[in-house]
Amino acid sequence: MYPNTQESQENFGIACKYFREQINLSQEKFALKIGMDRTYYASVEAGKRNTSLQNSQKIADGFEISLSRLFEKVENL
Amino acid sequence: MYPNTQESQENFGIACKYFREQINLSQEKFALKIGMDRTYYASVEAGKRNTSLQNSQKIADGFEISLSRLFEKVENL
Repeated sequence: MYPNTQESQENFGIACKYFREQINLSQEKFALKIGMDRTYYASVEAGKRNTSLQNSQKIADGFEISLSRLFEKVENL
Repeated sequence: MYPNTQESQENFGIACKYFREQINLSQEKFALKIGMDRTYYASVEAGKRNTSLQNSQKIADGFEISLSRLFEKVENL
């Protein structure tokens, strides 16, 4: 019924990459924009991070979208 | 523009309480249902936890809703 948690982690990364490319920023520039460590953000996109609520909120804010919008994308890849 | 991260943590807790009450389960029974420590879940509802993606997914699965639905509620309290 719902993706298992590892899958949702990977899909979260894919959705982040999608929105980052929409605003034409490199991982490095986007991480800088939201005050997140570049390698940490890269691992989020690689689906390797069990991202926290606060970091997810920071990422969504950086894309200027709501968290519900970001998760809608995660669920509709 | 967007709630600060502490506020989104508190709103996340309020939204969880809302959906839990919709399914008429106590915190204890709901935590048992999703295999989460009762005191941990209680602290999520109290807005004291920077919940991880995987735990948020477990909670949403327990309510049988999507994460985007849960965050829609968070954003429209």
